[in-house]
Amino acid sequence: MSRFSERVSAAVAAKNSCLVVGLDPVLARLPAEVTADATGPAAITAFAREVIAAVAPFAVAIKPQIAFYETFGAAGWTAYEETIALAQSHGLLVIGDIKRGDIGSTAAAYAEAHLQRRTDHPTADAVTVNPYLGSDGVRPFVDAARANDAGLFVLVRTSNPSAGEIQALELRDGGTVDERVAALVNEWGSDDGSTPYTDVGAVVGATTSTALARLRGAMPRAWFLVPGVGAQGGTAADIVAAFGADGRGVLVNASRSILYAHEARPDVPWRKAIADAAQTLRDELRDAARAATTP
Amino acid sequence: MSRFSERVSAAVAAKNSCLVVGLDPVLARLPAEVTADATGPAAITAFAREVIAAVAPFAVAIKPQIAFYETFGAAGWTAYEETIALAQSHGLLVIGDIKRGDIGSTAAAYAEAHLQRRTDHPTADAVTVNPYLGSDGVRPFVDAARANDAGLFVLVRTSNPSAGEIQALELRDGGTVDERVAALVNEWGSDDGSTPYTDVGAVVGATTSTALARLRGAMPRAWFLVPGVGAQGGTAADIVAAFGADGRGVLVNASRSILYAHEARPDVPWRKAIADAAQTLRDELRDAARAATTP
Repeated sequence: MSRFSERVSAAVAAKNSCLVVGLDPVLARLPAEVTADATGPAAITAFAREVIAAVAPFAVAIKPQIAFYETFGAAGWTAYEETIALAQSHGLLVIGDIKRGDIGSTAAAYAEAHLQRRTDHPTADAVTVNPYLGSDGVRPFVDAARANDAGLFVLVRTSNPSAGEIQALELRDGGTVDERVAALVNEWGSDDGSTPYTDVGAVVGATTSTALARLRGAMPRAWFLVPGVGAQGGTAADIVAAFGADGRGVLVNASRSILYAHEARPDVPWRKAIADAAQTLRDELRDAARAATTP
Repeated sequence: MSRFSERVSAAVAAKNSCLVVGLDPVLARLPAEVTADATGPAAITAFAREVIAAVAPFAVAIKPQIAFYETFGAAGWTAYEETIALAQSHGLLVIGDIKRGDIGSTAAAYAEAHLQRRTDHPTADAVTVNPYLGSDGVRPFVDAARANDAGLFVLVRTSNPSAGEIQALELRDGGTVDERVAALVNEWGSDDGSTPYTDVGAVVGATTSTALARLRGAMPRAWFLVPGVGAQGGTAADIVAAFGADGRGVLVNASRSILYAHEARPDVPWRKAIADAAQTLRDELRDAARAATTP
């Protein structure tokens, strides 16, 4: 298996897409057809199966949000692993949205749990990591990622309304907290430079064009995982500044705007509503990537 | 059931102890007697059962570190829940060391998974939370805690070597990142003021006496959960400055120095080595609390 960054590059090129579909499954919002046949975590898995099949032609990766699985305890954990295996069987990359982060020995345990390839439990191709504990909370994930041809996306700037409370604090020596984290991401991702991008990416919310350009400048070789498009209000056009000069380097996540696309289109079969939403966003993102390389 | 902060106060008074025993179980370090009879998560649970019984007279709470359980997948999750139930059956509080944190709707799912009392899954009395996403990543935990007579410990200053990379950054407007987080913790914990402490505590590493005093000043009504004593190098005497003026307000966690106390004492039965280590640290902490109230 090749390095994570190369697998992402290959998938983006093959599908001419930078779309990631986030799986944030909430029972109350699943199509009635799904919840008629299954309950609890079984319904979540059944829905994930249909979503994955519907979006596979348009998306390069699936991002299951583990919080929604944890609400079901051990059975939810099994459903999370089943979702990973389902997506991988469709040739999709899986980004486990786990946002873990802890001191060294504990971070190593998380990295083992979530990135170490094993025969008994499917694991994600990459995970999200929280940087608040600094290098020794992140390095074990970097090491595990490299040992397993997997990747990371470190939270740099998130897309929620209060993200700036800590992330945008201005520092005495210049710059902001998120810029300092970006510098660390650049350092953590440092490698032999043989590929355009590294295996240590960054979560960078679709906030302002200025913020995206600033963080791209600080992390020229990081894959950006950009949340906040769709239900959280960002548009494809907002993220032009996130792309590298080659029109690559960006994965855009949309969750609720795709998963629950059927709610706004009761006249259309729900699988088609989901597939249509994925295709439409894929096309918009393709235009944004093209705009990024147009002088 | 009474509020979390009051349950902590009652436990600390009843046992004249502020000791929390962290459960960071690593198979390779368990006593041979345990691993002879059980493997994998069953061994972890068997060990937890013995540790809980050994330390129950001296500790007020147990802090299972969920990362070590996650390495076993769904079976690990079940072992985590079993550990919670075992500790609670001994009258111990349980602090789930999960360090979760995410955007609002996801944080609400984590809070439901880990704090909502339910008949089918035991849940912790409190959990640790990462503040990097700001208020809307923490408020759902605060709300869930209050609705369930549970508590939180927000990461303010951790005990690992690289903690300062982000947490100690100095801000343009004065103070440091951890002080800004401390101000937020104070705000999140704001309540009717009818009790000495609130249900929103803080993780504050046993770093310097100056740092502890500074953060106590910023969070006068927060329970401090202080890691870093024992295997990470801090001593009981280091934490005198963390206590409130009433000699309360502090819980001190020790994990590996208690769990693996038998490794350094091969001549003593392992359960006794663990109980002795807990009793010794409990006594040292009692002296530190007394020193905090001595003019």
